[in-house]
Formats: sequence, C-alpha cells, structure tokens
Amino acid sequence: MGNKIIFKGRLFCLSTKKVKLPNGYISDLEVIKHPGAVLIIPFLAKGKVILLRQFRAVLNIYMYELPAGTLKKKELPLDCAKREIIEETGYSAARLVKLGHIYPVPGYSTEEIIIFKAEGLEKKSGKADEDEIIESFIVTKKQVRSMFKSGKIIDAKTICAFTMCGWL
Amino acid sequence: MGNKIIFKGRLFCLSTKKVKLPNGYISDLEVIKHPGAVLIIPFLAKGKVILLRQFRAVLNIYMYELPAGTLKKKELPLDCAKREIIEETGYSAARLVKLGHIYPVPGYSTEEIIIFKAEGLEKKSGKADEDEIIESFIVTKKQVRSMFKSGKIIDAKTICAFTMCGWL
Repeated sequence: MGNKIIFKGRLFCLSTKKVKLPNGYISDLEVIKHPGAVLIIPFLAKGKVILLRQFRAVLNIYMYELPAGTLKKKELPLDCAKREIIEETGYSAARLVKLGHIYPVPGYSTEEIIIFKAEGLEKKSGKADEDEIIESFIVTKKQVRSMFKSGKIIDAKTICAFTMCGWL
Repeated sequence: MGNKIIFKGRLFCLSTKKVKLPNGYISDLEVIKHPGAVLIIPFLAKGKVILLRQFRAVLNIYMYELPAGTLKKKELPLDCAKREIIEETGYSAARLVKLGHIYPVPGYSTEEIIIFKAEGLEKKSGKADEDEIIESFIVTKKQVRSMFKSGKIIDAKTICAFTMCGWL
C-alpha cells in the first residue's frame, strides 16, 4: 500500500507506509530501509580475537565492538567483510566463513547483519575512515567473558557474534 | 552543534546533526532518537521460559522473540516491563530483576534495551495491541539452544538476553 519516502540519508532511508497485517488490521509503519551490514570475528592464532574500542557519536560513548560495517551499493556481504576487516583492524583474512545472521531492530529497521568468522589473518596497512575513532585490542575468551559479565560489552551484535562462536 | 529535526514519529524521532568528534573531525550524523525499550525473560517453574512468535511487518516475517516493548513517555523501565509482560504473555510477574542493558544499533539509534528476568508468574488476562500478532510458547533451555543453533532465533535482543541468563 502507500509508501511515502521521508528522508534519504547516507546510511539509510526512512519511509512511512500502510500495510495489511495477516489479521486484517491496517497498520501504519515507520520503516528504516537499511542496506544491511556485516560483522567479522577476527581470530588470530591461539584463541585470540581482535576487539575494537570505538567512539559512537550518536550515543557519545566509547564501546567495545567486533569490526563491522554497512554494505555499499551492490556490494556482496563477503566483499564487505573483506573490506571492513582491513579498514578497521589492519589485517586481511585468508578465510571468511558465515556463521549466521541477526536482525538488530526488527520493529523499525530492515537491517540484517551477516556474521562472519575470519581466520588466516595477515597484517596490512588498513586505514579507518576519518569519522571513525577506533583502537584495537587482542583479547582471549576468558577476557571477553569477564568483560561481558562486568557489563563492558553492551553492543548487541558483538554479544550475538560471541555467542554464535561459543565465546559467550 | 546544528540539530535539524526531520521527522517525529510514533516510535522515534529522526534528526541530522553536526558533531565534533574527539579527534576534531566534524561529522554529519543521522540520528534516530528513541525513548528506550525493555525486554523480559519470563521464567515459569521448572526451567521454562515463555517465548513469542511475532509477526514483524517491517521485515514481513514471523520471528521468535522474548517479550519486549518501547517505553511510553515518562515511563520507567521497570513499569514498562510490568506492563509489557502482561500485554504480551498474559502473565504478571511478582519479581523483575535487571540483568543488564544493550545497544542494538549504536551507529544510528540512541535506543537502549534494559533486560529483565521475571519470576513468580501468575496468569492474567493480557491483551496484545491490535497491531501485534503474537503467539506464545513454553520452551526449555534445550529447545532454545536447538532453535538458536538451527538459525530459528535471529532476533539480536533475544539472543543477548538468553546469553545474559546463561541459556545460550
């Protein structure tokens, strides 16, 4: 039914639309149309993972997160993962394996996040975007569990990814 | 700096603004200002939890999710949790304990989800909103683990909550 575009932005598009639900009720939706995203769990040798500490301007806080990024136009999730791991960690990955997918906000955004495990890392000279403030750390499973239990890891996609790979 | 409101909706407000990042770079943000939300893990006796199967019109799919909802104006998270558990499951809770909080999309939304564990459930006559299509199931830890492993639980907040209470 009616679809009215309110805003076309850099990250997403906002529209309102009327839809008929399976129970017949006509609902007014507010929809963030999002191109989708990827998250990468970068495994170094000996059970170690690269974790980022990133400034989130929207919340005005620093957060611990696994590397992730939004799909560019016509970009495949695997290609996006290859690009983002280099940009955000400075490592390339020889192997990227899809572990699963999640919907972070099914109530108002079409965003789907594909989760990859990365192995066979090799140091490159990655460079984050100018508007990204990122430090990287190497952490063990024990450290990740401790950070989660003490409330230091509060990014939903990062918690889901660590759960998928058995680290939480 | 400049904050321009683009849209005021039922669920959230969209604005664009310029902010100075800690590195001095001026960034253009697209911000969903969200009132916040709660999620409740409703524990019945004998290690059983109430899980919902809900129609998500934005994605046009049914999803398995724990009960959750958005804070009303000036509503406290605990009051929202008390209200939502009755509305979505038909049970009231004698005890609600905060387990933690998560940010589902820190890149573009201020939404924070407070996660509660609910115990001491008592059957009431709850009624979901007209635009909510919800069925509820009673599931065991083993069933939740199996559903997660087979990719049937893909809602990020639900995965985070089950991880927080040790069910995943």
